[in-house]
Amino acid sequence: MTVSVPALSAASADASFEKVQLERRDLRPDDVRIDIRWAGICHSDIHTKREEWGPASFPLTPGHEILGTVLEVGPEVTTHAVGDVVGVGCFVDSCLDCAACKDGEEQYCEKGGVGTYGVQGYDGEITQGGYSGQVVVRDHFVVKVPDAFDESQYAGVTPLLCAGITTYHPLKEHGVGPGTRVGVIGLGGLGHVGVKIAAAMGAEVSVLSRTDAKKEDGLSFGAQHYYATEDESVFDELAGSFDVLLNTVGSGIPLDSFMGLLARGGVMHNVGAPEENLEVSAFSLLANRRQIAGSMIGGLPETQEMIDFCAEHGVTATVEVISADQVDDYYDKVVSGDVRYRAVIDTATLEA
Amino acid sequence: MTVSVPALSAASADASFEKVQLERRDLRPDDVRIDIRWAGICHSDIHTKREEWGPASFPLTPGHEILGTVLEVGPEVTTHAVGDVVGVGCFVDSCLDCAACKDGEEQYCEKGGVGTYGVQGYDGEITQGGYSGQVVVRDHFVVKVPDAFDESQYAGVTPLLCAGITTYHPLKEHGVGPGTRVGVIGLGGLGHVGVKIAAAMGAEVSVLSRTDAKKEDGLSFGAQHYYATEDESVFDELAGSFDVLLNTVGSGIPLDSFMGLLARGGVMHNVGAPEENLEVSAFSLLANRRQIAGSMIGGLPETQEMIDFCAEHGVTATVEVISADQVDDYYDKVVSGDVRYRAVIDTATLEA
Repeated sequence: MTVSVPALSAASADASFEKVQLERRDLRPDDVRIDIRWAGICHSDIHTKREEWGPASFPLTPGHEILGTVLEVGPEVTTHAVGDVVGVGCFVDSCLDCAACKDGEEQYCEKGGVGTYGVQGYDGEITQGGYSGQVVVRDHFVVKVPDAFDESQYAGVTPLLCAGITTYHPLKEHGVGPGTRVGVIGLGGLGHVGVKIAAAMGAEVSVLSRTDAKKEDGLSFGAQHYYATEDESVFDELAGSFDVLLNTVGSGIPLDSFMGLLARGGVMHNVGAPEENLEVSAFSLLANRRQIAGSMIGGLPETQEMIDFCAEHGVTATVEVISADQVDDYYDKVVSGDVRYRAVIDTATLEA
Repeated sequence: MTVSVPALSAASADASFEKVQLERRDLRPDDVRIDIRWAGICHSDIHTKREEWGPASFPLTPGHEILGTVLEVGPEVTTHAVGDVVGVGCFVDSCLDCAACKDGEEQYCEKGGVGTYGVQGYDGEITQGGYSGQVVVRDHFVVKVPDAFDESQYAGVTPLLCAGITTYHPLKEHGVGPGTRVGVIGLGGLGHVGVKIAAAMGAEVSVLSRTDAKKEDGLSFGAQHYYATEDESVFDELAGSFDVLLNTVGSGIPLDSFMGLLARGGVMHNVGAPEENLEVSAFSLLANRRQIAGSMIGGLPETQEMIDFCAEHGVTATVEVISADQVDDYYDKVVSGDVRYRAVIDTATLEA
């Protein structure tokens, strides 16, 4: 017995979103049914829907920043209860048996984890994401939203499920804390959360944005410094002065110039996923023994750790709440960098 | 009062080496005069002399793998004594006052360290390298050759001063030891030493060479496995199976294919310095949170640690001893990969 829920769905890469009814599966023993309250729009949703990362599965309901309330749980579920406020991020299943899963890095599952939308689950069904009224998710992939957040913050908590963990993981991996000099390249959906989290970790945070347009915001998010990189003298002035560069910009930046900003042993960590290759001089790595790293979100234990950390430090994304009718327009606004700083869909507006 | 010593010198990028007399400076209080016995040929010597890395300073005497005996020391030298067997690597001076120098990473000196040949020292004189009868070097930049090496091994010890530390540093930085799966890309001057050192560290070592031509050698150097990458099925067979890839090949390899060989959290460490940029897909980094790193040799404390480690484990380079007259030919042989595995000049042959 499936349940029919309202959703936004695209029929093709070029099509607009339409309000449809989506079937959600009946509960398996380890499933959690979630009444979705908020659904964030991630740039990945756009890359996927527009087939910029390859062919997509249509009809498609994107959305992997999901926050809601537990409506119902399967008989084997012990970790979540009806009424709990919970979140779901980029994965809804994985084998839970390989080395990656056992290490709590389900996103690198050796069997291939199951993404939240647009991919075939282990049951053969195509997953559909958060732009919808409900979702049914295996308990392991559901995160608790800490009580320290109050309801008025929930829209801003929602993007933490992707943008939060995407930026938290590298900051943690590279030991960011007091005394670490962190530069965040790009102040968009990912970058602005990265600034807030790095600042909450006690680091000295600089924003490296193309223009001065977001200076006031950047400083209000907790950055001590803000540099507009369209002024190329910045690259001389700041040479060798960062331990970690969190690169949230997909493409089109002069990587070698940015590599020159790294101190000895410094690392540029890429969380964007541009279609174009990354290209750097070998000397950018040899000089000051620099590194280029990358990662995809984080595993479930780390996602819970991240959201607990954010609750403790009062970190939420800065969001624009939008209605279902605005999603097509906001896809364009995300691409042109005009959203301040993450769009979150009010799912009360999904009903046709 | 300078001392005149025999040397090989090139007058230009295109010129052959000629036997000349070179002036070595009189001792400063902290100087060590070394009677050079062996001088290794590094690929860097060739890049520099042929101006493939930019304009060079001529006349040029290359050589930064130097082994010899202390002839004389300045009055302030306490760490070296006449008769000691010592080595000199890629640097002969640095500020010894910046953060990098204080951390024992003189190669990243913030003032700019002084390379062993072809650059202007702090005194304004152009340094000249190891293809010569003697060299005068500031004491801090002189490494002790451990007593555990006997004289018959000295030719093979010589390349450790560059090739040894260049490969030892990344293996150490990435925690290589028992249980680590190390792939060494390229079995040349650097790679063959990397295989020996990684094996001595207790790692499970694989050679990734283009052809099977060096298979017997690779296994004799301590590798457990040898793969010829001209057979592209290797990239499927070995996907995700290395913790560390030590890339000793300058250029012309399919980087993304090699990145696919890295396990979760794995790192490709580049020690080659090709003119061409490194180009990888962003997804190569995101998948399995992989990294690309690089480094230049190691600092003096680590160079001493490396040579002590090699003495303890009986690691030396496998060398072809050549005479001064053969250096031009061997430059071509190094470039075409025909040296087994490092050429070392017998300085007794330098006299005109």
